[in-house]
Amino acid sequence: MQHPKRIAIIGSGLVGSLLAIYLEKRGHQVDVYDRRPDIRQTEFSGRSINLAMSDRGWKSLRSVGIDEEIKSLGIPMDKRAIHPMEGDVYFQYYGKEGEAIYSISRGVLNKKMIDLAEEAGAKFIFESKVWDVALPEATIFLGESENEPWSPVAYDHVFGADGAFSRVRHKMQRRSLFNYSQEFLEAGYKELTIPANPDGTHKLDKNSLHIWPRGNFMLIALPNLDGSFTCTLFMPLQGDNSFEALHDEKTVENFFGHYFEDVRGEIDNLKKYFFQNPTSTLVTIKCFPWTYWDKVALVGDSAHAIVPFYGQGMNAGFEDIALLNDLMNVHGDDWETIFKQYEQQRKPNADAIAELSLRNFREMSSKTADPDFLLRKKIENWFSEKHPDKWIPLYTRVTFSTKPYAEALHEDERQQRIMDEVMKMENIKGEWQTERVEARILELLASS
Amino acid sequence: MQHPKRIAIIGSGLVGSLLAIYLEKRGHQVDVYDRRPDIRQTEFSGRSINLAMSDRGWKSLRSVGIDEEIKSLGIPMDKRAIHPMEGDVYFQYYGKEGEAIYSISRGVLNKKMIDLAEEAGAKFIFESKVWDVALPEATIFLGESENEPWSPVAYDHVFGADGAFSRVRHKMQRRSLFNYSQEFLEAGYKELTIPANPDGTHKLDKNSLHIWPRGNFMLIALPNLDGSFTCTLFMPLQGDNSFEALHDEKTVENFFGHYFEDVRGEIDNLKKYFFQNPTSTLVTIKCFPWTYWDKVALVGDSAHAIVPFYGQGMNAGFEDIALLNDLMNVHGDDWETIFKQYEQQRKPNADAIAELSLRNFREMSSKTADPDFLLRKKIENWFSEKHPDKWIPLYTRVTFSTKPYAEALHEDERQQRIMDEVMKMENIKGEWQTERVEARILELLASS
Repeated sequence: MQHPKRIAIIGSGLVGSLLAIYLEKRGHQVDVYDRRPDIRQTEFSGRSINLAMSDRGWKSLRSVGIDEEIKSLGIPMDKRAIHPMEGDVYFQYYGKEGEAIYSISRGVLNKKMIDLAEEAGAKFIFESKVWDVALPEATIFLGESENEPWSPVAYDHVFGADGAFSRVRHKMQRRSLFNYSQEFLEAGYKELTIPANPDGTHKLDKNSLHIWPRGNFMLIALPNLDGSFTCTLFMPLQGDNSFEALHDEKTVENFFGHYFEDVRGEIDNLKKYFFQNPTSTLVTIKCFPWTYWDKVALVGDSAHAIVPFYGQGMNAGFEDIALLNDLMNVHGDDWETIFKQYEQQRKPNADAIAELSLRNFREMSSKTADPDFLLRKKIENWFSEKHPDKWIPLYTRVTFSTKPYAEALHEDERQQRIMDEVMKMENIKGEWQTERVEARILELLASS
Repeated sequence: MQHPKRIAIIGSGLVGSLLAIYLEKRGHQVDVYDRRPDIRQTEFSGRSINLAMSDRGWKSLRSVGIDEEIKSLGIPMDKRAIHPMEGDVYFQYYGKEGEAIYSISRGVLNKKMIDLAEEAGAKFIFESKVWDVALPEATIFLGESENEPWSPVAYDHVFGADGAFSRVRHKMQRRSLFNYSQEFLEAGYKELTIPANPDGTHKLDKNSLHIWPRGNFMLIALPNLDGSFTCTLFMPLQGDNSFEALHDEKTVENFFGHYFEDVRGEIDNLKKYFFQNPTSTLVTIKCFPWTYWDKVALVGDSAHAIVPFYGQGMNAGFEDIALLNDLMNVHGDDWETIFKQYEQQRKPNADAIAELSLRNFREMSSKTADPDFLLRKKIENWFSEKHPDKWIPLYTRVTFSTKPYAEALHEDERQQRIMDEVMKMENIKGEWQTERVEARILELLASS
């Protein structure tokens, strides 16, 4: 039996709320602070890509008994629906029969998670700004504004779940020996909507993640329960086809008409929302250490913000919480060991999913038009279908597995080295679907 | 003729003071703020490696007419004096006859630079803390402490010369699309002193930079005008031979007696100062952009802090200022273009010297005991002496040249590729000083 502690969580987002549920169920007394108003009482700003919950997320919800309740908020997507410039839409199944990722609206999910945390006993304090944290004392400082006197509130432990631009991390960052980086992509994103049909049904196949890949930009659409789709346009911020170049209604109209002809007519009031909705940026944030003694720990985006091209941001944050819970089961009241083990075990996996997410972006931006790359992918898929036990695709390892991300990255690098050799084979372009190639891959697998 | 502007420089260190001199000589009205007291009225804290001024630094001082005055504060060092564990000290000349770097105490130099800036007309405001900067308005906010009301002061332009942990950069860092990283070495450093002889002469050769290389740690000593040497011990923070391991007088005494036997007796009150002086850390800081519109610019360490193993930190900061001055000559009142060109031209060079400085650290820590590495260096030196026009050593390119750092890095990589080939030659160990090897290098140079 652990001693109950007074714990502050800064940030009432998805990861902070899940942590509150876990800690309350362990008997701790949890206060969750957020500088924003209660999301349950406000219109959601609509500045986030729809979430794709996959196995890692589900496992973290299941351990605390809320997976079924959350599942009812989601729509399973068992495939990508690819919309090429020319020709018909085609489908790529994500995994085996029954394997799917779940589209969930961030706003809907966040509201539900806060409800569940409150039911578990957590206290939420909204519109309350934390300006400073005294790390050795686990004391937070609240105030109306940065340059007015602040009130201290002392806790036993403080968690920073306050996102990519974390104030808690910021305090740790100004200590010596704190490694930190923030790196922005030269691409940004903007949300748009495809409304439901008048009868409430979806205008596109609702069990697909829809993609309109266009080289260095793309549109995606994820289904919502109410029949709508949340669309996200990813595009360079500057240059030929860029947010900067789409500067008036006419350029937007022409651009969508040309590149997204099949869906252009379905998007809700494109000319209005394209300019009303913000253009958001994409950042990778890395840091270390994640904890301060047994007092303060960072979780989720505040420790490891990633770009969204693997749909793993929330899943990775939820895994942080499940790992903390596992370590609390093992180490009881020894919070120093819990925090130390947490950051040591988790950091390599956070770095791995950050790298994989960036690679996926680069692949989508620059490689999809490269015939060699496409041939590689075809050979991998062909071999994987013949030998599903010997060649598990990277996407499957990341999405439909809970094995560490670092293992998935490592295995991917091994597979890439094998494919480098395969691509050197004589007449590989003409004869890739042959026993000769199959035998070569099996041989390389056995020797690597 | 440019329009005179009201300019704030945050930070009265070496780079801030030099910038103040340049700007005053251009007719601007400059206020320099520093949160610390006037260094001219305080005991210097002694927390900095002695500086080594080289060609880039001198050129930047010469353009504004203060190089001769500063030279009188320095001691030329034309060679390294290497003190091995066993055997006698030996010398490595840095360059050609007459080429030298200059040892200057940071404190002495900084006091002089502030004097010169005041003479030029700059106003210094010490013990004045800048808490915030409104970037679009070039307005700084001053106050006694962070959480009390601040007073705004508006300028035409603001420069952040406030060092590695710059407050001005910190403000820029929280903007979107600001890339930033801080990465600490696992080694730190501590200063010690070798006092002058009673007659004021130096206890060691005064025209040398003394080095006691010991694998993953080393001691260095640089001469001061008063007959003393400033010593710096670089060592891992943790592990076998580390600051952590030297935890009491006895371990310190044994360590110095064993590893630095020839100099141990000369160090001033080792047992006292080893524990009284702080152990400092070493960080590389990179960021981009360095400027905000035509309003705010970062210079020196605030834009690009590097580890000290090439002795180029101050030299690189001074080059920033000389480049800004050159751009002001070309672009007149067009500060937007001046700032844009400044960051675009300077960033690749700052990245290059950061990388070179880290490589020098890694070389010193891990490669000095590698026979292959030592052979490489011997071959390079031998060839360079035979063909000084064809093989300019990296150290010379960085130290005794004002060509861009990025070119020096690029050329180094070319030389390394050539040496990779040379090291593959048959019996290279036994026959490196031969015409065969010379001919091969000439051939590789011609074809690369």
